[in-house]
Amino acid sequence: MFESAEIGHSIDKETYDAEVPALREALLEAQYELKQQARFPVIVLINGIEGAGKGETVKLLNEWMDPRMIDVLTFDQQTDEELARPPAWRYWRALPPKGRMGVFFGNWYSQMLQGRVHGQFKDAVLDQAITGAERLEQMLCDEGALIIKFWFHLSKKQMKARLKSLKDDPLHSWKISPLDWQQSETYDRFVRFGERVLRRTSRDYAPWHIVEGVDPNYRSLAVGRILLESLQAALANNPKGKHQGNVAPLGRSIDQRSLLGALDLSVRLDKQDYQEQLVTEQARLAGLLRDKRMRRHALVAVFEGNDAAGKGGAIRRVAAALDPRQYRIVPIAAPTEEERAQPYLWRFWRHIPARGKFTIFDRSWYGRVLVERVEGFCTPADWMRAYSEINDFEEQLVNAGVVVVKFWLAIDQQTQLERFEEREQIPFKRYKITEDDWRNRDKWDDYTQAVGDMVDRTSSEIAPWTLVEANDKRWARVKVLRTINQALEAAFAKDKK
Amino acid sequence: MFESAEIGHSIDKETYDAEVPALREALLEAQYELKQQARFPVIVLINGIEGAGKGETVKLLNEWMDPRMIDVLTFDQQTDEELARPPAWRYWRALPPKGRMGVFFGNWYSQMLQGRVHGQFKDAVLDQAITGAERLEQMLCDEGALIIKFWFHLSKKQMKARLKSLKDDPLHSWKISPLDWQQSETYDRFVRFGERVLRRTSRDYAPWHIVEGVDPNYRSLAVGRILLESLQAALANNPKGKHQGNVAPLGRSIDQRSLLGALDLSVRLDKQDYQEQLVTEQARLAGLLRDKRMRRHALVAVFEGNDAAGKGGAIRRVAAALDPRQYRIVPIAAPTEEERAQPYLWRFWRHIPARGKFTIFDRSWYGRVLVERVEGFCTPADWMRAYSEINDFEEQLVNAGVVVVKFWLAIDQQTQLERFEEREQIPFKRYKITEDDWRNRDKWDDYTQAVGDMVDRTSSEIAPWTLVEANDKRWARVKVLRTINQALEAAFAKDKK
Repeated sequence: MFESAEIGHSIDKETYDAEVPALREALLEAQYELKQQARFPVIVLINGIEGAGKGETVKLLNEWMDPRMIDVLTFDQQTDEELARPPAWRYWRALPPKGRMGVFFGNWYSQMLQGRVHGQFKDAVLDQAITGAERLEQMLCDEGALIIKFWFHLSKKQMKARLKSLKDDPLHSWKISPLDWQQSETYDRFVRFGERVLRRTSRDYAPWHIVEGVDPNYRSLAVGRILLESLQAALANNPKGKHQGNVAPLGRSIDQRSLLGALDLSVRLDKQDYQEQLVTEQARLAGLLRDKRMRRHALVAVFEGNDAAGKGGAIRRVAAALDPRQYRIVPIAAPTEEERAQPYLWRFWRHIPARGKFTIFDRSWYGRVLVERVEGFCTPADWMRAYSEINDFEEQLVNAGVVVVKFWLAIDQQTQLERFEEREQIPFKRYKITEDDWRNRDKWDDYTQAVGDMVDRTSSEIAPWTLVEANDKRWARVKVLRTINQALEAAFAKDKK
Repeated sequence: MFESAEIGHSIDKETYDAEVPALREALLEAQYELKQQARFPVIVLINGIEGAGKGETVKLLNEWMDPRMIDVLTFDQQTDEELARPPAWRYWRALPPKGRMGVFFGNWYSQMLQGRVHGQFKDAVLDQAITGAERLEQMLCDEGALIIKFWFHLSKKQMKARLKSLKDDPLHSWKISPLDWQQSETYDRFVRFGERVLRRTSRDYAPWHIVEGVDPNYRSLAVGRILLESLQAALANNPKGKHQGNVAPLGRSIDQRSLLGALDLSVRLDKQDYQEQLVTEQARLAGLLRDKRMRRHALVAVFEGNDAAGKGGAIRRVAAALDPRQYRIVPIAAPTEEERAQPYLWRFWRHIPARGKFTIFDRSWYGRVLVERVEGFCTPADWMRAYSEINDFEEQLVNAGVVVVKFWLAIDQQTQLERFEEREQIPFKRYKITEDDWRNRDKWDDYTQAVGDMVDRTSSEIAPWTLVEANDKRWARVKVLRTINQALEAAFAKDKK
């Protein structure tokens, strides 16, 4: 979920200085239009890792925009008045009216996360709080509010460096959070429970935006842009279509850095290493699937990737190790008539393996947020809600003991071109290349964006995405097998506890 | 929540026989239209008290409609295949395709209720299951499904009688549920947790319909009508407007019996009894509010009722007992400009009392489901979602120690007429009567319906409605005071545990 907020996004000073004036002007304009229309309030929630620049960003927004129309609110210790009333009262009294913007620090999410991180309650109670937040936000959206949620992220290493530098600077030392932030375990717990919260509360009507907090230029521009685009979309929106309407768009990468772009596609294996490792991993997989601990689990492997990235070859190398009675390969193409008569996820549920079994999906339920999104086969509202539906779906699988492994096989454009051309040359491979493939290629950037959003919104501790460098097929095949094996072993190890 | 399903609804044989043919024909027609359009599936959930006629009703629907287009599914013991997969798999595989109807017995609600009633888990886990059900249903509705949820209800007395009669009849004895249904405590727990489930899962897109199960004619006609109206509304609906679209309408009372109609308005107190009891209850209230246990609570009293039912007089008698520093009366009229710029509930949240304090609302947040509904000041989608928003709101109050008491002061039309005329005669009362009052009077039946729905959907164990027979003002005033006192004492008594 935080993958693409750990790749070192940054914007150089020159670009930043060039971009800011236009952004400021557009933000101001949107703000006045908001006031003019006085049709809905804007609620901005600020959460995330300590030291990731939450405060600085808000301060900056206040400089950029007209601060007379923004209320920045910190919810820290409850006052006596607040303590004497239901917990939500403090938020209600602070709601911005139509036409204004409220920036909420230390909001409902901070409270629930803090409680869970400090072990004041368990997951079931956290889930109650999450449901409460969802209901509150759904109601606010039904009443017309635009809710924009920012999560400022830092990797553990970045956070430690940042906390250290803050401590060293006497002017900033007040920003240091309680001592326990400095403990590695606190970070881990915060991120783990944060992920649970984000996974469940990132809904189509109020999605989270995760922003990498290391580089001030990047984070300021990113937040400003998301704010601007969300505002503009809501202002342009037909006043009646509340529900679909206030969907904040997902932000585009603004520094040309993407999760896929950050992959080192030059990695490779020579032939001998490949053959040795392949045989080893295949034997390991065969052993794991025969292990009696496998009776408590099932295995689902999802293969997605660029056209010609080698999904088929990788799947064959996985299958080669196994007894055919134990696995099934489900190729996902256009839905059948029967499948079109059912909810989207139905055609995947029907292929969920029983305990002890293994299903390989050659393309999958991610079609909705990839090809259907890029090609416009479904509405933005449909693919926006698909992220949380997919998260719910996979959570149900994992809770039932299914091990879920998801691969994106990534190649670069040059490699794809070579493979396309090769396919056209070789008669028995010609069937593998179609007009569609060439057309998809034109949408390379759209797909890159869609893959980034997909990983950000659906990669989680319980069902992580694995990005596979696939320019070298050998490397890719071994990595796939090894990842599956590691996931199974991790699941088995957890059982013992 | 179950109030109006315990008033002895019934339909005589003659009416029943006269109504059924047209209903059957209309149902068949709707069913064919459903098949023709093949635009959405219909999912009917059947839940409720044992012996309330769930099975009989479904059997009948199968007779009335074309059974080739209905799949009736019972989810009882999980099969081996189901046990080997995530719990939801059994429901997914059974989903009706577009154009068909699936009737689900023993569905997700039965499972969670059974688990909770038998103490297999606590409320927090029940709430997780509730959230899961909500997410599933929201997704299904987003995908176009029409969900109709029936809860068949019996009072405890009725259930006992029914179970007895079933046991006596050898042909029916298989229907008797496990022994424990016969225990009074099982019923109480089932109803209590059932209410929690219904309160939280009755959403605008998939509301519950509670049907009294005693009289077979009534229950069959009621279910048939709700099914028909829901189908017709969804079939007529613009294919695009999924979300607002598939809102199943709330059923109208079909036997002229209503919760308000079931009140005995002839009850009265003579002057001397009144004066004695009034003084006693006022003193009791004053004592309770001064009690130190009051420091852990606040008190909210809501007054709604027919025009001229005597709300003002009752409120004055409550206030008369008290120190003015301890209570506030908040009259709710048209919202101010500031209030119109906020979500609906904001103007009530702002008046929530601190601990130790008492707020009297002279009219309240129920305006949305009363006057705004009847006068068309808001859309049906708005007042439909208000029920669950109000339940959430009151639950937050109660969880924070606020005692919530809600009164509907009921008079009959004749009494209202006399009071209106009296007001027009007496100069100092003339300000109390306006054109609006006469206009509201014309909508008597609409208000009766709205009050019935309101009580059914928002009266709960934690914040029950009290219907007050108010033809006799003395009776009403004493009943109001006594109810407040009892609610406070009950809350104090619970603290001790």
